[in-house]
Amino acid sequence: MTVYTRPVHYYETDRMDCVHHSNYIRWFEEARVYFMQENGFPYEGLEAAGIVSPVLSVEANYHAMCRFGETVEIEVELNDYSRTRISFRYQVRDKKTGENRCDGWTYHCFINEAGRPVSLKKVMPEYDRIASKLLKEKEEQ
Amino acid sequence: MTVYTRPVHYYETDRMDCVHHSNYIRWFEEARVYFMQENGFPYEGLEAAGIVSPVLSVEANYHAMCRFGETVEIEVELNDYSRTRISFRYQVRDKKTGENRCDGWTYHCFINEAGRPVSLKKVMPEYDRIASKLLKEKEEQ
Amino acid sequence: MTVYTRPVHYYETDRMDCVHHSNYIRWFEEARVYFMQENGFPYEGLEAAGIVSPVLSVEANYHAMCRFGETVEIEVELNDYSRTRISFRYQVRDKKTGENRCDGWTYHCFINEAGRPVSLKKVMPEYDRIASKLLKEKEEQ
Amino acid sequence: MTVYTRPVHYYETDRMDCVHHSNYIRWFEEARVYFMQENGFPYEGLEAAGIVSPVLSVEANYHAMCRFGETVEIEVELNDYSRTRISFRYQVRDKKTGENRCDGWTYHCFINEAGRPVSLKKVMPEYDRIASKLLKEKEEQ
Repeated sequence: MTVYTRPVHYYETDRMDCVHHSNYIRWFEEARVYFMQENGFPYEGLEAAGIVSPVLSVEANYHAMCRFGETVEIEVELNDYSRTRISFRYQVRDKKTGENRCDGWTYHCFINEAGRPVSLKKVMPEYDRIASKLLKEKEEQ
Repeated sequence: MTVYTRPVHYYETDRMDCVHHSNYIRWFEEARVYFMQENGFPYEGLEAAGIVSPVLSVEANYHAMCRFGETVEIEVELNDYSRTRISFRYQVRDKKTGENRCDGWTYHCFINEAGRPVSLKKVMPEYDRIASKLLKEKEEQ
Repeated sequence: MTVYTRPVHYYETDRMDCVHHSNYIRWFEEARVYFMQENGFPYEGLEAAGIVSPVLSVEANYHAMCRFGETVEIEVELNDYSRTRISFRYQVRDKKTGENRCDGWTYHCFINEAGRPVSLKKVMPEYDRIASKLLKEKEEQ
Repeated sequence: MTVYTRPVHYYETDRMDCVHHSNYIRWFEEARVYFMQENGFPYEGLEAAGIVSPVLSVEANYHAMCRFGETVEIEVELNDYSRTRISFRYQVRDKKTGENRCDGWTYHCFINEAGRPVSLKKVMPEYDRIASKLLKEKEEQ
């Protein structure tokens, strides 16, 4: 489990005086990039090897509003991994109170420069080793 | 069924040379606002009456990339309505080829200035009439 | 003179209940892309020829707030052109009242795939012809 | 002088494989909010006292591109202050190399809930004291 912390930015609010729902999807991405870096398989490494990891689907459930002046903690964990697919789970909490604000999932595949799906085990075995280890740790919880 | 048409903006692309996935959630909102206006229950009317309609959850499935230079058509329809809850379904297509790029749903409730859930039938009977009619039309398809 | 029209989107507002100042810079880009397309030298054509036109500087003066529910008209004109540099001037007005909300400028150069500055007259003579004509028209006003 | 550090986010890039120019204006805001907090006159305090500080104008000069994978340092300083007006100067540098990427200014006024300009010295004397001190320090450099 990795926790990514960041303040709410003024430009992320809307006239309802809370963070616009679309910005949480960007927060998921920030947290995912941080998670991969912290766990030894940085996203930049994927793209440097000519692989991209497009989002196949995203889901977010909004429980309570986040406001300017607050700092949020985003807990990220590997949700699932299968060499050709990877998914993450996120929980956004108010750092001060611990209140659960939003949770969600993102699902991704891996494609090469020709746009063809690839197996991470074949193209980046070290990344596959890390993702497999994280999945095992999650299943043993 | 309502169709909202708009070009892909340069600032909406990312280094993967396609529209960033978070922007489709903003496109859903543009399409939803257009849908409500075209069908006689504009979103501005809700907020003018002291009611806001926060997003409870969002789901998006990405099938193919949208790129700068393209124009997209976003088909919107009422998904469900129950006086205290409303949801919409969206399909994003490339205007030129008709290719399905992304589909999704957003789910909303209605709350008053005190932050309490309200029934649209009680607070805005004309809006309830329109939403109920749209639901009936959808169910009869 | 070209006029680009577009509604204010909800996600563009902030807790001050007006369009966040950073979004006007994105509106300038939308208007610039529209201007180039309407005048026969579309931005996509530049990039298709391996040329990009990065922004060297931007300036915006904010006179009055834009709000959700409004539609804005953005008047764009060529400000200056010299084969290696181009600049545009923008005026954002409320469509309903004509009130001047914001004006600004963007300044650009042209660079090739190697990142070297290029002369538009050399690499895309048709684009140079159109830009020169627009400059002449502006100077004769 | 205050330095605000933050990573480049993937969603901030565009198809030119660099941070979109509009996002630097948002970075200026993040840096300004951090500067005010670090120097004892947090922006949240202004708005809690019913005062908002809209942007009157913004200027940015772009020298070199920022890319995903980089971290930037944004140096912020008070540019000028006069009780009814305040301005800030920003310099965005690559943290790793120290390369100057972008510099700019933002100019602001103070208005109350009725939308009327106010003197910060009258409405928030402690904030006026801090801003005046920062101006004096800058002028003595």
